[in-house]
Amino acid sequence: MAALTDTALYLGIDGGATRCRARLQTAAGVTVGEGLAGPANPRHGQAAACEAILAATHHALQAADLTETAAGRIHAGLGLAGVGQAADRRQFLNWAHPFRSCALMTDAEIACLGAHGGEDGAVIVLGTGSCGVAMVAGQVMRVGGWGFPVSDQASGAWIGLSAVRRALLAHDGIVDPTALTKAVMATFDTDPEQVVAWQTTAGPADYGRLAPLVFEHGAAGDAEAAAILRNAAADVAQVAERLWASGARRLSLLGGVVGPMGPWLPDRLKENLDAPMGDPLSGALLLARRSCAR
Amino acid sequence: MAALTDTALYLGIDGGATRCRARLQTAAGVTVGEGLAGPANPRHGQAAACEAILAATHHALQAADLTETAAGRIHAGLGLAGVGQAADRRQFLNWAHPFRSCALMTDAEIACLGAHGGEDGAVIVLGTGSCGVAMVAGQVMRVGGWGFPVSDQASGAWIGLSAVRRALLAHDGIVDPTALTKAVMATFDTDPEQVVAWQTTAGPADYGRLAPLVFEHGAAGDAEAAAILRNAAADVAQVAERLWASGARRLSLLGGVVGPMGPWLPDRLKENLDAPMGDPLSGALLLARRSCAR
Repeated sequence: MAALTDTALYLGIDGGATRCRARLQTAAGVTVGEGLAGPANPRHGQAAACEAILAATHHALQAADLTETAAGRIHAGLGLAGVGQAADRRQFLNWAHPFRSCALMTDAEIACLGAHGGEDGAVIVLGTGSCGVAMVAGQVMRVGGWGFPVSDQASGAWIGLSAVRRALLAHDGIVDPTALTKAVMATFDTDPEQVVAWQTTAGPADYGRLAPLVFEHGAAGDAEAAAILRNAAADVAQVAERLWASGARRLSLLGGVVGPMGPWLPDRLKENLDAPMGDPLSGALLLARRSCAR
Repeated sequence: MAALTDTALYLGIDGGATRCRARLQTAAGVTVGEGLAGPANPRHGQAAACEAILAATHHALQAADLTETAAGRIHAGLGLAGVGQAADRRQFLNWAHPFRSCALMTDAEIACLGAHGGEDGAVIVLGTGSCGVAMVAGQVMRVGGWGFPVSDQASGAWIGLSAVRRALLAHDGIVDPTALTKAVMATFDTDPEQVVAWQTTAGPADYGRLAPLVFEHGAAGDAEAAAILRNAAADVAQVAERLWASGARRLSLLGGVVGPMGPWLPDRLKENLDAPMGDPLSGALLLARRSCAR
């Protein structure tokens, strides 16, 4: 494959709290390899994040029948969770990476670039956490996504927390129990002291694991589940209005919570959503191409 | 003091997440010494909790001009945070304590005993956390207090969390900023990324430290502060109704948040509150006397 032996290569990296994905393309935009590795959130350890990025890159190079020496021809675009602060980004880019160039954005920002093919637009990412981002006229605006439990409304973690709260209130006889509140308590053997012990160390992912119960009972008409999901949908709509007000004309919803949340979204929001043009890795690749062209 | 050299002694211990207090009384109910030591929550380390209890006891014995050998004449009543589970209590009581007898309840339960002179009644404790307890006809019922952020409504931590949430929504342009939301953001240099960094390790006490800002701005008529405090007061009223429904005829509010919360409580609640007869240590002493008499 002569085309791969001397020309520039472009690498997109999507690094999050649970895994790191890599995609390698030629100058012509042909994908020649992909790779996968463990978590890559610099906030939880820069060394581990760099290691995951290099491991995912290694797998992508292998898939393209290239050796590590090809890294010197790679322009990399990285989208990483936990680099929202300029100081975080500066610190991360001090890393002695093996690439010809390396540009960095947050994971939400590359998702936005990818969803709108590099044009202006906005996204709301709804996963374990949640975050709104608009990129308009060269400006980036972030709405929400300041972490759990102070922010991240309508995320999986937020929905799970709401479910545990209502389940405990039902257990205490303050609100009427429903199938959802009983199902949530059943995951703790119907013993609130087990909730006490669990939440001493529970993080967003632990709360998020309860969200599927809420969607399942919501679909079956459970009153408590419906109230939680209507509130979450209203929170999403508020963020959407804010992003539109910032001048974004395209808006996409992304993330694992979007599918089951769909039926609960207000009509005005549903009717004005745009299907994403590409995935976050395609946004990371756009970042790589743009940064080396500057 | 001949009366102290051979008769039984009674010790009350009130052990919480920030300190441990001790009060030593004669059989006749005369207080002969008090003592203070560090945190005594077995959930955060049984050895440290036992050490704090012994240190507070040591100070109380010193104040009474008694030596450690007097511990063998002491009937102790302990009220400790974090012993809500029967298993926690059993484990704790395996401790090779130096007392003649040792009985254990939660800190909220001794507060309830103390507030009603050992008679039936209920309390809602509003501090950094919150908890409702009713003791009626020999039965203990607990309402709320399953921890932060899944429970503990209307606690200092809960009020602080609500304030940070609303401050971030105002920062994002989703709700109108007020003096409160600006004051909360000012504690983070008006930089939401500082909130992200802070909340990575913030615990209930850290959130609780923001509660005074809410009370201060609420008293000045701030709309966001007023909404948070009205919600918190409604949560307290719900717990109160539940405790009354359990058969409790007396109800007292206890804890640092009660004073500033007063003006926000609904009239029906305010008019039906009972002043506490005694403090939590008096309840711990009642526990000590009852347990050794059985």
